[in-house]
Amino acid sequence: MSKEKDKRPATKGGSKYVKKQKPTASSAHKKTAPAKKENKMPLKIIPLGGLGEIGKNITVYEYKDDIILVDCGMAFPDEETPGIDIVIPDFTYLEKNRDKVRALVVTHGHEDHIGAIPYLLDKVNVPIYATRLTIGLIEGKLKEHRNLDIAKLNVVDPGQTLEFGPFSVEFIHVNHSIPDAVGFAIKTPAGTVIHTGDFKIDTTPIDDRIIDLARFGELGKKGVLAMLADSTNAERPGYTMSERVVGESFSNLFKKAGHNRIIIATFSSNIHRIQQIIDEAANCGRKVAVSGRSMLNVVSVASKLGYLNLPDNVLIDIEMIKKYKPEQLVIITTGSQGEPLSALHRMAFSDHRQVEIVPGDMIIISATPIPGNEKLVSKVINELMKRGANVVYEKMYDVHVSGHACQEELKLLMSLVKPKFYIPLHGEQKHLYKHAMLAHTMGVPKENILIAGIGDVIELSKQGIKASAQVPSGRILVDGLGVGDVGGVVLRDRKHLAEDGIIIINVVMDSATNMVVSGPDIVSRGFVYMKESEQLISEVTEVAEDILENCYIHRVRDRNTVKLRLRDGISKHIYEVTRRSPMVLPIIMDI
Amino acid sequence: MSKEKDKRPATKGGSKYVKKQKPTASSAHKKTAPAKKENKMPLKIIPLGGLGEIGKNITVYEYKDDIILVDCGMAFPDEETPGIDIVIPDFTYLEKNRDKVRALVVTHGHEDHIGAIPYLLDKVNVPIYATRLTIGLIEGKLKEHRNLDIAKLNVVDPGQTLEFGPFSVEFIHVNHSIPDAVGFAIKTPAGTVIHTGDFKIDTTPIDDRIIDLARFGELGKKGVLAMLADSTNAERPGYTMSERVVGESFSNLFKKAGHNRIIIATFSSNIHRIQQIIDEAANCGRKVAVSGRSMLNVVSVASKLGYLNLPDNVLIDIEMIKKYKPEQLVIITTGSQGEPLSALHRMAFSDHRQVEIVPGDMIIISATPIPGNEKLVSKVINELMKRGANVVYEKMYDVHVSGHACQEELKLLMSLVKPKFYIPLHGEQKHLYKHAMLAHTMGVPKENILIAGIGDVIELSKQGIKASAQVPSGRILVDGLGVGDVGGVVLRDRKHLAEDGIIIINVVMDSATNMVVSGPDIVSRGFVYMKESEQLISEVTEVAEDILENCYIHRVRDRNTVKLRLRDGISKHIYEVTRRSPMVLPIIMDI
Repeated sequence: MSKEKDKRPATKGGSKYVKKQKPTASSAHKKTAPAKKENKMPLKIIPLGGLGEIGKNITVYEYKDDIILVDCGMAFPDEETPGIDIVIPDFTYLEKNRDKVRALVVTHGHEDHIGAIPYLLDKVNVPIYATRLTIGLIEGKLKEHRNLDIAKLNVVDPGQTLEFGPFSVEFIHVNHSIPDAVGFAIKTPAGTVIHTGDFKIDTTPIDDRIIDLARFGELGKKGVLAMLADSTNAERPGYTMSERVVGESFSNLFKKAGHNRIIIATFSSNIHRIQQIIDEAANCGRKVAVSGRSMLNVVSVASKLGYLNLPDNVLIDIEMIKKYKPEQLVIITTGSQGEPLSALHRMAFSDHRQVEIVPGDMIIISATPIPGNEKLVSKVINELMKRGANVVYEKMYDVHVSGHACQEELKLLMSLVKPKFYIPLHGEQKHLYKHAMLAHTMGVPKENILIAGIGDVIELSKQGIKASAQVPSGRILVDGLGVGDVGGVVLRDRKHLAEDGIIIINVVMDSATNMVVSGPDIVSRGFVYMKESEQLISEVTEVAEDILENCYIHRVRDRNTVKLRLRDGISKHIYEVTRRSPMVLPIIMDI
Repeated sequence: MSKEKDKRPATKGGSKYVKKQKPTASSAHKKTAPAKKENKMPLKIIPLGGLGEIGKNITVYEYKDDIILVDCGMAFPDEETPGIDIVIPDFTYLEKNRDKVRALVVTHGHEDHIGAIPYLLDKVNVPIYATRLTIGLIEGKLKEHRNLDIAKLNVVDPGQTLEFGPFSVEFIHVNHSIPDAVGFAIKTPAGTVIHTGDFKIDTTPIDDRIIDLARFGELGKKGVLAMLADSTNAERPGYTMSERVVGESFSNLFKKAGHNRIIIATFSSNIHRIQQIIDEAANCGRKVAVSGRSMLNVVSVASKLGYLNLPDNVLIDIEMIKKYKPEQLVIITTGSQGEPLSALHRMAFSDHRQVEIVPGDMIIISATPIPGNEKLVSKVINELMKRGANVVYEKMYDVHVSGHACQEELKLLMSLVKPKFYIPLHGEQKHLYKHAMLAHTMGVPKENILIAGIGDVIELSKQGIKASAQVPSGRILVDGLGVGDVGGVVLRDRKHLAEDGIIIINVVMDSATNMVVSGPDIVSRGFVYMKESEQLISEVTEVAEDILENCYIHRVRDRNTVKLRLRDGISKHIYEVTRRSPMVLPIIMDI
């Protein structure tokens, strides 16, 4: 593993970055010839994910024979993909162009930006460049997938610039809901492109490191060809509040909690949130216990790397909580999205080994449900309330702030960067559309704004912007160890089975005489409870017998024809008497 | 069908009701003996639905040998009930007490208050009393279910009072998102109970009929034992805005639409919303076409009964729209919740017979997604935007207002009614809890507030309130024509099938020799695409062959044992190589 250890201490408590340091030793693939300015080829930008969807963010920057990648994230499955664990981008284009791919630069350590890296490395083992915490989180992920040993990981500080062939990539510090997030200024022969990554503008962040607006302004003054920016909150007017607001709410709620235990659920990656909880607990003389695998993992990585400052004797093992009184305890837990296997869900449904909810427990859900999770979260809240807990979850308490820029922040960054062309990134169509409108109101001409889709080859030069072609793109489904083996047919079958179940008709036939030797026997799953549906089952058996006899009389020997007749006849009968359409599967065994 | 036609014209444009008219001729089951005041038995209130859940609202009021029911609604299925069409209450308690059940009084015509009536009538043919529009909507529902001919429907005007044994039920006009909604003052020997139904306070409603606050105040002055009130918006501070605000937004948006077509999706039952759209269209010289089965149905019923005022020559058939220019058209459609079979969904996905979305179309989604529908709605919005439509959907445009009272309205009603006891109705635990807190802040002692669950027998007298026992309650699942035949086992199987699919192992054995005659043959659905998984299938076949041979050698003849070994062995192998757990179904046919 070629991991370059950065010798300098992590910058903490200040925002002084070396503004430009090039070239660095970590640029493993750097070429010696500087990019020729006279070259007038257009730059190609190919988003392979993250447009027209939430998640699996990955963007290809291609100039002649060189490619760099920005981010490589996963997406979560939805109701269209039952049984699927995660969704990753289609890497076909990168596999075909593996010799061109110089580097993967990563904006931050959230799953939708790093989650597909292990799968990419299985196909194309590209060197990875990211800030210290991001590399720490990628390491954990690769260890799980057992390809850490082949990975080429490189720690980069914000402010550093790396060169990869014709590209020079400057890491610029931004605020987000995870520390150590960066945006990129990507200099290419066609011009400079700003790629924001996920960001917000927090003028009072917990680590005092404000987004490097000055640098964005400086780049803007020198001239920026295009900006690709975070659309997540483009529908929301105003500003996203500072993370510090949440700390103030915690402070008030801790006072209100009185002699009761406090349990706070939040995103494990929100290290500043966790820091604020720990600080407030220390202030109040409470101990902090952590529950949930991902929370334990992040707390361990972040404290090891110095991103989490743990006062002495505050953190205790979750097994130790019974030794303390309720008023001496704060428990930080996963499950803020109501996930069925999470620690908070288990607490709510009395299935947690160490934590039993008791009346008076103050439970703070320090997160907003991600669209699609609303009902899961409500279910957990309802259950906790039934056990007498005091659950704090409304927005009005300010127990959560977003990590993404709202409209005024987007406008502010646009006004600093003043890009000639604009490409909204990270969002569904409605977010991209609002973001595009916003850029237009800020003076970017409509023809200079491109709402792209995944797989589009965006050609960009000073002369113009256009989507010129399409490369393979889409979603690859991961189910257990299988990557891409579950496709449309299987998903369609799963949805059909979920709706109406299956009814199987078994027949043994003599291939010589064409006579039925055994059966038809009926088995069903997910259709009706067979023990209580004897009449229906015997009707179906009769229908099958009639069809089989008819086939025998008319000398129908072709098994597929017999099966087809069984399927059609039985489906028709079942629909008539039940108005349901289970999957009907006739199986003929020949002897 | 014993439907009593009310001879008086429907009260319109005013709020003058006959305050008390008793007894009316429509009280088919009224008893001659007036309720004896001296009787000190407690009143029993049994919610059979609508508590700890959204939907299927139904409440039993029982006094000695008499029962009246308030509402009889359905609920929608969720991710826990795949393939289910609707969910209805468990009527066991009513069937057991059918001789006691005197009447069903209905607050308003929404599905969660009337949707289960056809199923109730199949079990207990109780006479139904409701306002004119509500009866109109129930009629349509019964016609569909083919039990209109047996139904005993009675139209009641707000202000009227009916007597059923010891109960006297006064219909009191309230505001809601459907016209003709009422709450009830139920006088019983134990005292007067106010049952609000769904309500809001709209001081500028479209039909000028403000909720009858004066009557609630009058009853409050006389003394109210308990109030059962709508918790839907109990989490929301402030006031729900007037429906009239939406009309103003429409007016602005119609101006903005310019020469483009306008398409508005809303709830079909929101007749005042539809009225406002029609009025604004008439103002602007646009024609109105209606799309969607339920929308057409409601427009027809409401205009026939005089609840919808159609100006001449405004409504056109949807087939006629091609004869008009875009600026001459407004289309009112279903699909505001993104429902996959709705008209708006079909328009978005180019599957609508008459309406093809073209760039510039202004599409207004005049509704808020019901929790759980957020992603469906986003999907439709994204698709419409891809086709170039201008989609208006944010709250900031005020294109929708809720039909339910927020905290200040609830407090206002509490202050008028001044109930001794308080029972929050209609909501999940979190809504009931907030509502209870609110009642407490208004001075109701904690011991006088009861957060109940469905099936609880609430005993209520001047001395106190308690949940004393439990009666059968729960959710009955309707799937096609089947009512209650899909239970836990079938749902568990459906969820399992949806997650991982099924793999079927077929073997034909000779019962005499215990030898395999044919097979094992493997068939799978929803697991892997068999054509691309030949290796896995042949591995599974080998595992099955080994197990069968082993059984033969060790003279295992019991078929269930053989099946169990096949299932366990194959499950284990599949999990090891794929990390998936499909349903494994061995089928042995004997000859």
